[in-house]
Amino acid sequence: MTYLALLRHGQSQWNLENRFTGWVDVDLTAEGEAQARTAGAALARSGVPFDKLYTSVQTRAIRTGNLALERAGLAWLPVERNWRLNERHYGALTGLDKAETAAKHGEEQVKVWRRSYDTPPPPLPPGGEFDFSKDRRYAGVRDLPATESLKLTLERVLPYWNDVIAPDLKAGKNLIIAAHGNSLRAIVKHLFNVPDSAIVGVEIPTGNPLLIELDAGLKPVSVRYLDEARAEKLPPLPA
Amino acid sequence: MTYLALLRHGQSQWNLENRFTGWVDVDLTAEGEAQARTAGAALARSGVPFDKLYTSVQTRAIRTGNLALERAGLAWLPVERNWRLNERHYGALTGLDKAETAAKHGEEQVKVWRRSYDTPPPPLPPGGEFDFSKDRRYAGVRDLPATESLKLTLERVLPYWNDVIAPDLKAGKNLIIAAHGNSLRAIVKHLFNVPDSAIVGVEIPTGNPLLIELDAGLKPVSVRYLDEARAEKLPPLPA
Repeated sequence: MTYLALLRHGQSQWNLENRFTGWVDVDLTAEGEAQARTAGAALARSGVPFDKLYTSVQTRAIRTGNLALERAGLAWLPVERNWRLNERHYGALTGLDKAETAAKHGEEQVKVWRRSYDTPPPPLPPGGEFDFSKDRRYAGVRDLPATESLKLTLERVLPYWNDVIAPDLKAGKNLIIAAHGNSLRAIVKHLFNVPDSAIVGVEIPTGNPLLIELDAGLKPVSVRYLDEARAEKLPPLPA
Repeated sequence: MTYLALLRHGQSQWNLENRFTGWVDVDLTAEGEAQARTAGAALARSGVPFDKLYTSVQTRAIRTGNLALERAGLAWLPVERNWRLNERHYGALTGLDKAETAAKHGEEQVKVWRRSYDTPPPPLPPGGEFDFSKDRRYAGVRDLPATESLKLTLERVLPYWNDVIAPDLKAGKNLIIAAHGNSLRAIVKHLFNVPDSAIVGVEIPTGNPLLIELDAGLKPVSVRYLDEARAEKLPPLPA
């Protein structure tokens, strides 16, 4: 048996402002930092001897991981970062707040982009304020996305899961993944065989690690939030 | 040409109390955190496009690296930690303050242990308060030291330098190493061919990155402190 803890980053400045953040590298608020430390205390209390931390290449997830490890006395854990654990790329919605998006595209259309599994927003226009192809952290990444549905997010998370994370778990390592609402949803969908129609309803709370116990074939055998008082609905264990 | 920035961790609680810290995992003070951020601002101002961070497995160096990268907008850099970048292991002196050490061993003897290149203090007795062999971060490390001279520190830093760090530099990567007074001294001694008798006099200041420019053979061709106002004496460039 191995353990996997999924840790969603704490509150960021743009969460607060209700803007589509996606790949924009927004930092945590003070509240988000506190959530990360609370999560670290919960990871320590779990008693699981964690071996490694995985993160996206986005500051809010990286700092959540750092702060949680520090609080848990695990700052020394090896850490590996990869863009495939990034938040969903919101394409042309990037940077818009709720009101701006509704005014530009209509509320019904925005609901579709938010709630459907496989409808991506229009692509991010190149050369604008948020042209991630110029960002040094993505140098060498082929086929950088310009927009993503949740389905496309899952399709770019999975190669990293299969090639890097799953082998670590199969080798008996207990892992923490500090990442984002939608990249973590992608992992939950994959592990729990959540149907396309149901995955958008799965909401991983911030700063409350989801601890999944996996058998040798990486099938979940138990799952719980470490802070039970703030637990969201859990995905059912696969048959 | 590639760049190597050597970053010594900021003030720790035991620096403040003047105790032999060595491998004890003491955290930064608030002043030490501020020094790390100052160093991060200096790294950003240098304009060097850094590619990777190396750290020891000790919290004060790890947090110095994290805080510096965050301030520099480089939280996303890949990071690799290894015990071979740890501070010198002070053996039986570990945890003693200046007065305790002098009372126990005599001031002259303490001077020898502090100033000589190759005289280690007595080994740390196993099973005491500071038995690092029980620490999970050192699981799997063969021949864990029980005490070290500066010479022995250098001898355990060098394999990691030769096998891991030097190949990265030869591949053209610009690196930051966040570590400790003596592990950084070991690297400086190696790179600048500092004689045994002179290396103890080389003092790398905290929170002031030493930026070394290296040619393809990893020979230093320029060296400077990023905060020139707080610069210590520089080792002369090798002939």
